[in-house]
Amino acid sequence: MSVEASSVRELFNPRSIALVGATDKSGWSVSTLLNLRTHGFPGPVHLVNPRGGVVHGQPAYRSLTEIPEPVDLAYVMVPTPAVLGVLKEGAKLGIRAYVVLTAGFGESGEEGARLEAEVAGFAREHGLTVLGPNGNGYINAAAGVTPYGLPIPEPLLRGSVGVVLQSGALASSVLGFALARNVGVSLLTSMGNESVLTVTDVMDYLVDDPATKVIALFLETIRNPAEFSRVARRALEAGKPVVALKIGRSKLASRTAQAHTGALVGDDDVIDAALRQLGVLRVRSLEDLIITAGLLAATGPLPGRRVGVVTPSGGASEIIADRAEDEGLELPPFAPATVAKLAGIVPSFGTVQNPLDVTGYVLIDRTLLGRALEVVTADPGIDVVLLLSEPPKAAPPDPAPVFALYSATARRIAESPVPVVVVSNVLTDVTEFGRRVQQETGYPYVTGGIEHGLQAIAAAVRWSETRERVLARPAAEPGPPPAVPEGARGVWAEHRAAALLEAAGLPVVPSALAATAEEAVAASDGFGYPVVLKVAAEGLGHKSDVGGVRLGVRDAAEVRRVHAELMAAVPEAAGVLVQPQRGGGVELLVGVVRDPAWGLTLAVGLGGVWVEVLRDAALRVLPVDAAEVRLALSELRGAALLRGARGAEPADLDAVAEVVARIAAFAGSLGDRLESLEINPLLVTGSRVEALDALVTWQDG
Amino acid sequence: MSVEASSVRELFNPRSIALVGATDKSGWSVSTLLNLRTHGFPGPVHLVNPRGGVVHGQPAYRSLTEIPEPVDLAYVMVPTPAVLGVLKEGAKLGIRAYVVLTAGFGESGEEGARLEAEVAGFAREHGLTVLGPNGNGYINAAAGVTPYGLPIPEPLLRGSVGVVLQSGALASSVLGFALARNVGVSLLTSMGNESVLTVTDVMDYLVDDPATKVIALFLETIRNPAEFSRVARRALEAGKPVVALKIGRSKLASRTAQAHTGALVGDDDVIDAALRQLGVLRVRSLEDLIITAGLLAATGPLPGRRVGVVTPSGGASEIIADRAEDEGLELPPFAPATVAKLAGIVPSFGTVQNPLDVTGYVLIDRTLLGRALEVVTADPGIDVVLLLSEPPKAAPPDPAPVFALYSATARRIAESPVPVVVVSNVLTDVTEFGRRVQQETGYPYVTGGIEHGLQAIAAAVRWSETRERVLARPAAEPGPPPAVPEGARGVWAEHRAAALLEAAGLPVVPSALAATAEEAVAASDGFGYPVVLKVAAEGLGHKSDVGGVRLGVRDAAEVRRVHAELMAAVPEAAGVLVQPQRGGGVELLVGVVRDPAWGLTLAVGLGGVWVEVLRDAALRVLPVDAAEVRLALSELRGAALLRGARGAEPADLDAVAEVVARIAAFAGSLGDRLESLEINPLLVTGSRVEALDALVTWQDG
Repeated sequence: MSVEASSVRELFNPRSIALVGATDKSGWSVSTLLNLRTHGFPGPVHLVNPRGGVVHGQPAYRSLTEIPEPVDLAYVMVPTPAVLGVLKEGAKLGIRAYVVLTAGFGESGEEGARLEAEVAGFAREHGLTVLGPNGNGYINAAAGVTPYGLPIPEPLLRGSVGVVLQSGALASSVLGFALARNVGVSLLTSMGNESVLTVTDVMDYLVDDPATKVIALFLETIRNPAEFSRVARRALEAGKPVVALKIGRSKLASRTAQAHTGALVGDDDVIDAALRQLGVLRVRSLEDLIITAGLLAATGPLPGRRVGVVTPSGGASEIIADRAEDEGLELPPFAPATVAKLAGIVPSFGTVQNPLDVTGYVLIDRTLLGRALEVVTADPGIDVVLLLSEPPKAAPPDPAPVFALYSATARRIAESPVPVVVVSNVLTDVTEFGRRVQQETGYPYVTGGIEHGLQAIAAAVRWSETRERVLARPAAEPGPPPAVPEGARGVWAEHRAAALLEAAGLPVVPSALAATAEEAVAASDGFGYPVVLKVAAEGLGHKSDVGGVRLGVRDAAEVRRVHAELMAAVPEAAGVLVQPQRGGGVELLVGVVRDPAWGLTLAVGLGGVWVEVLRDAALRVLPVDAAEVRLALSELRGAALLRGARGAEPADLDAVAEVVARIAAFAGSLGDRLESLEINPLLVTGSRVEALDALVTWQDG
Repeated sequence: MSVEASSVRELFNPRSIALVGATDKSGWSVSTLLNLRTHGFPGPVHLVNPRGGVVHGQPAYRSLTEIPEPVDLAYVMVPTPAVLGVLKEGAKLGIRAYVVLTAGFGESGEEGARLEAEVAGFAREHGLTVLGPNGNGYINAAAGVTPYGLPIPEPLLRGSVGVVLQSGALASSVLGFALARNVGVSLLTSMGNESVLTVTDVMDYLVDDPATKVIALFLETIRNPAEFSRVARRALEAGKPVVALKIGRSKLASRTAQAHTGALVGDDDVIDAALRQLGVLRVRSLEDLIITAGLLAATGPLPGRRVGVVTPSGGASEIIADRAEDEGLELPPFAPATVAKLAGIVPSFGTVQNPLDVTGYVLIDRTLLGRALEVVTADPGIDVVLLLSEPPKAAPPDPAPVFALYSATARRIAESPVPVVVVSNVLTDVTEFGRRVQQETGYPYVTGGIEHGLQAIAAAVRWSETRERVLARPAAEPGPPPAVPEGARGVWAEHRAAALLEAAGLPVVPSALAATAEEAVAASDGFGYPVVLKVAAEGLGHKSDVGGVRLGVRDAAEVRRVHAELMAAVPEAAGVLVQPQRGGGVELLVGVVRDPAWGLTLAVGLGGVWVEVLRDAALRVLPVDAAEVRLALSELRGAALLRGARGAEPADLDAVAEVVARIAAFAGSLGDRLESLEINPLLVTGSRVEALDALVTWQDG
């Protein structure tokens, strides 16, 4: 990590604060002081303005040095060129923590970037913790410390979601939406340019922060994937879910032209795979970010995908059934005992099924929904219960019955043996009265609307599943030091690449390099006919493009003729590769390419139209084990082919996964200059798995 | 239509109302009277209770007959067995319109269904219009007529969205959400059991209702597809978009086991295709239903998919870019003149691009966003502008500057040459103050949140595109009377099916039915080798399953041998079909199956893995023309193959579409007992299109 944990803790928990550059003319200055005053910061807040005088109605010091007491945090709003001077002065005084709101640094061009580097360099050298520059600060709601430069939507709800934002402009929307959902935050940080303190530093802090149960991220970029992976794993181990809205999905990039795999591995595809492997729940909207984090903070992770649904409406229960299927959740039939009990509760004109509609009779018998809920929570085949309900909007003249009703349901939910997720029909704000009812009756968090609620439930289940899988696996051991082969540069075409794989004990189709026609015939006689002949030339990546592959060569005479043709077609050829011809089976493409950010990444897909037309490939950032490869294979749209669709022999998936994992591990052992290793095809015939062609590309050393 | 338009108009616009079965003990009774009183119904409301006395503080009549004035609408809340009596009494008195809230009819079992049929029968016989039974009534907000049995969320906003619901329980959520979005309704109808008045009757009314611009539907079932199609077309012609949340997506059904097509055509797939063909915008959530309808009502249809985006936030603009790509919207670069003008507006540290982030400097210069908006709306390459902004939440102490700012933007939007859609960051309620600002400044509708807003924009564009396409096409002419072929029953295997197609002038591979080996040889000699031999047996659907198809038969000797083998394998065979063997090209599956609800439905897909593993098929309800078929082909995931991917010759898509449209038209000419007609494969080689195999299935006549 770039900043010590203890320093981050100090940054977020100062006992005294100085606002440097405070002035009545700046809205940021006004807001920051007001925020500190109204949200309970107990310590002194000193104002610093070079002209002194009275600012915001209180006397201002001319410099940090003039302040007669120790300062833990300086909130810096001075003009860009003056920022470094403030840090220098503060460092002398022993002030270790800074929030720099001032903009005009790296985001504004070259001169700004130079200034920023200077500031960051000074900070690192002197062990200063700097949040920003070009960030609005933070809101430590848990501790009531709010050095934050924009108005905070009122009321500020304290809770257990830690929010880290790479876009300051979205903070107000996030806070406003969290308030509307009755989701409280522990800490919200607006990162700014991250010149010293980074997202992963804050995540690291939140993993250890007892006030935080869930981490919500808005990410424009993941600056340090290795560091991000480390922190994400720590969060997983600590049982704190991370939910992320990572933007930039629409930008697709392909990296390496030599290998097919390149086209399959866009930047965002790799990020997506990495996040999934790390158990980070990626969402696509701010709504889902907060609703999902809110659910995980309030209800905790969900143990399984079998959902029992209790609603007072047939229409809503069918919307839920549709969305549950979209999200991969299951609505199993209720157990016979559950059905029997429900039959005694639901009016005779209703139907007892999952999803359950207890009918509009709830308007007459207000206990109906609660009683049905209690029965469904006891069903042994259900992991989670979804209760369609919502907090009340407006206070009626006599609110007592409302409180009684919600208390009764709250008690049932608290006593339920399985988690109960309350979902409202539509996404509307929780009102002030609704919040009060929730607070006073212990009524749980309500995920806003069926649409986002089902997404959140599925995410919470997925998190539990990933966590179990990842933690069951030992952390990756560092492998042996890489053994970079002799002459590792440029493109290694099949004859060299295959030899490399074979030497590593990977299954490769037998082959012989035949310089002369007679050598080719001898090899063919040995393999038995038909054979395949392929031109073997250094650096020739796509043999097929030059007509360099001939299938189904039937006898010695044809071998001689084809040998001559191939040698003539590619004058620089070292010879012709002879192989027995394989038939049947399913062809896989297995590629490992180096992502500039995340490192070696495995892509597995089915051959032919699957990768060429559909880009049907599953990605994994290395390292991977066989179990993870099996999961990747199951994600392919054409997975049915491996299971034996269209009359193919069912593939031995364990054998395939084991070979692919070994290929990946081998790629990982080849050192930093490996650009890509591609096996296309890897032929799978039942339990026989064999590489029929290979290509290795090296970066220039 | 089942009910006359004038009768529907009377139902929704009564001058006097009687509440029959009114009682202080019923919440429905209380609500209905209260709703009529508080929402401006100007006429008399009479209460009827068999015991007379005082109900809801006003004297009640003992029967309809006692009421001394004419009654236009009876709102019926009496016990189930008494409903028919009320209608009989009313009919005598000349009361033609009824809302029946009473439940216990078809939804409750056999006895209820019998009673309902009796009520409906009486109503039809006497020309009575009945809404319900088992429905809460309606809210004619435009006219201030609200005979509706549940509390109405306050305030009730009048507007131009007509809402028709097949689930009464969702009405409150829909109204509550519409209020939170500041979307007003013209009419909301809770349909109940639709025993007399149906969804399509109400849609028909709304198409002609001047207060309604958009129709929003919640559908559990489409009872009469032909009627629905007719009304949807009327709405399209009238320029009134229809948005629908149709549930039941999760139920997949396959209809016919004989043809491949059966497995490709689930009930919901057909509904989905039909709705798209009709220009009905299908959404998947209540949020999208109201947000989309609200946009279409306020902004109108959008003319194209090139969107200019103006925001005050880099983070938000990237979320928008991601979501725009998901939704198939384009964010083209701005024109040079636009860029030049924006460079003079956006601060130097900002970047001028689409999506545009005018930067957080908006907090200092409040006019920045509005000035940038004005420039972008003038860009000639933009169809629609998305402005990221939102109405204010809470009133500041001095609201005047807020009103001034929103007025200025409202004026710019009103003067824009292209539609401007205002989208907020997140989906939170429009507050009372926000509503006031919108109302008083003319600030337009705000689609709630980027997530749902982008979906709504894409839907509004799609509607315009579909409308143009559908209306450009003449309404389908009734074809010639069907010519059911002789012996149309059971399964017609290839030799008969192909002959049928050929006789209709459709391109079919040449073939000869050879009873003897010598006939087969003669035919083969005529076609030239290699040939294909297929066993020809009445009623044998899947020849391949019994080894009845032999490809690549090379010479006369092989023809003799294969003929003998086939005849031996299928003793009931009439002979062997001989065809020249075709090579290359792309294989399509073209199937027409009869959907029990929507009638003949065309499925086109690519052969092989595409349909067998991926279920990659595009559906269209008949009739279709070649243009529609071309569109269907372009929707295939494997469409790239037709355009020449993987080295295939590019298909002449016009030629393919024309043949497929002729096949569909021919299927349509074969009469009601056609169950399915499938051509698999239809071989496409450049511009040559030829059926290589066919199968026809008839329903028993």
